[in-house]
Amino acid sequence: MEEVVIIGSGPAGLTAAIYAGRSQLSPLLITGNALGGQAATTSEVENYPGFPDGIGGMELTQLMQQQAERFGTRVQMDEVVEANLRQHPFVIKTYGATYETKSLIIATGVSPRLLGVPGEDLFKGRGVSFCATCDGFFYKDKVVAVVGGGDAAVEEAIYLTRFASKVYVIHRRNRLRAQKVVQQRAFENDKIELVWDSVVAEVLGQQTVTGVRIKNVKNGEESTLAVDGMFTYVGTVPNTRLFEGQLELDERGYITTDHRMHTSVPGVFAAGDVQERALRQVATAVGSGAIAAMEAEKFIAELEGQAYPDRQW
Amino acid sequence: MEEVVIIGSGPAGLTAAIYAGRSQLSPLLITGNALGGQAATTSEVENYPGFPDGIGGMELTQLMQQQAERFGTRVQMDEVVEANLRQHPFVIKTYGATYETKSLIIATGVSPRLLGVPGEDLFKGRGVSFCATCDGFFYKDKVVAVVGGGDAAVEEAIYLTRFASKVYVIHRRNRLRAQKVVQQRAFENDKIELVWDSVVAEVLGQQTVTGVRIKNVKNGEESTLAVDGMFTYVGTVPNTRLFEGQLELDERGYITTDHRMHTSVPGVFAAGDVQERALRQVATAVGSGAIAAMEAEKFIAELEGQAYPDRQW
Repeated sequence: MEEVVIIGSGPAGLTAAIYAGRSQLSPLLITGNALGGQAATTSEVENYPGFPDGIGGMELTQLMQQQAERFGTRVQMDEVVEANLRQHPFVIKTYGATYETKSLIIATGVSPRLLGVPGEDLFKGRGVSFCATCDGFFYKDKVVAVVGGGDAAVEEAIYLTRFASKVYVIHRRNRLRAQKVVQQRAFENDKIELVWDSVVAEVLGQQTVTGVRIKNVKNGEESTLAVDGMFTYVGTVPNTRLFEGQLELDERGYITTDHRMHTSVPGVFAAGDVQERALRQVATAVGSGAIAAMEAEKFIAELEGQAYPDRQW
Repeated sequence: MEEVVIIGSGPAGLTAAIYAGRSQLSPLLITGNALGGQAATTSEVENYPGFPDGIGGMELTQLMQQQAERFGTRVQMDEVVEANLRQHPFVIKTYGATYETKSLIIATGVSPRLLGVPGEDLFKGRGVSFCATCDGFFYKDKVVAVVGGGDAAVEEAIYLTRFASKVYVIHRRNRLRAQKVVQQRAFENDKIELVWDSVVAEVLGQQTVTGVRIKNVKNGEESTLAVDGMFTYVGTVPNTRLFEGQLELDERGYITTDHRMHTSVPGVFAAGDVQERALRQVATAVGSGAIAAMEAEKFIAELEGQAYPDRQW
């Protein structure tokens, strides 16, 4: 019987592990297949407080993992395939094992949203990517397209100019949504060309990607851009399939939580992007991760009939 | 006219500054007299994610300040004496200047709660302290009392054993509230002696502190402990006096915010301990600071009649 199982290895899950570990709950953290979550796919995290020169996303999550392990977290590289929250203790099945646990912290995060156009699925991993940090290196002196206009799209487009000879940023509107400091850097970068008011209609190629067919949303005109790869940053979808019908989700599939990270099932808490409504950032993920762990500790103490002292001081 | 003024220099204020700076709002941060806030008075922050070996509270907030300044924050060492939120732009008066601002982020944090016993005020700064990091060094080979039983009390008691020959921890209950890993360290430390079920009734001394009179809350018996200093960690009170009658506060004086850090006045946001209900930690402060800044940016964009694009992607 576990005291607390944490699903997810991004900043929210790792922070929950740090806090649960310091409460001597010996947390079991099941990583999932995307080690480090979205943060780990970020080339450079500039706005996580405490690192004035920025830090690589992978490096940051590795530091957090060391910290979690220092306080007794057991990190299990495995993926949850089934979660039964209808009984207590909860039952968590992975590829490798079945666990019973008194409390559960869901920090499964989000996955990249797909464009849903012909060729996208076909060329996934062979020219269609969602992670510049992971795959940028393969596009040395090549031409790539980045789809999207938010922070992630523009930051990763800038990162890709380290490798690529040219980076098109294809955006369906006529202005970017990225923070201004990021926008400015993109405008000043000679390798970046903005393609406004346009969407990708098809990914073209034979063995590998050779181009994208784009459509101007204002006049309906179509054209082809010759590119060797496409990186997509058009939003995210929450990883909540395992919990459908068991937990209250909002209309977009995110887990509903209160300000103490309680879900609709007592003893089940959610943290990080999978429940975040205001701002999905490492800075917010660590906050909700910390709260979820402390609430799990309280839940367990109450289960065991220990009146839990007020933590105000 | 300022775009955004941030009041407070702890992790919440500095994170708001990092985010507002990256949005090119050139934020003005007014530090207040407690530089770095509560975090800066913490000897060692072990649970802020990203620092597996822990980091000094002052060092951590200095890193955050560098990061904020890197993105264009102007840090003003001054204290706000008056805030008029009844008109827009808001008017913020400090000892040194008067500012008008389109948006305001309040990150004024909390101050230590006083015991309210005779001698406490008299010996403040001469034996009565609220900051082990600041004053611990003065108690080399001396005897000190720490009052409280939460994380702060016990962690700082452990820190004080680096200097003091003996540390009494005076707690009004018969068990600690601190996290178990912290409790265990205290129990294993030979220099620490727990004084259970007791409260301080008076601080004794002439020029400096010579002892504390304590009272057992179970049997009413009084006794005297000979100590050279007293460090108090019995909770906190929010620094919201400037905003009374202008902003909605809860029954304990904390600023009421929604999950986007909006206060009851449009354009005024609050972040960090001054509004935190679930868990007051650096990890939660950075999250609310980030959100407050992004919401301030949206507020300003809307003021200027720019439809603000949905940030979901």
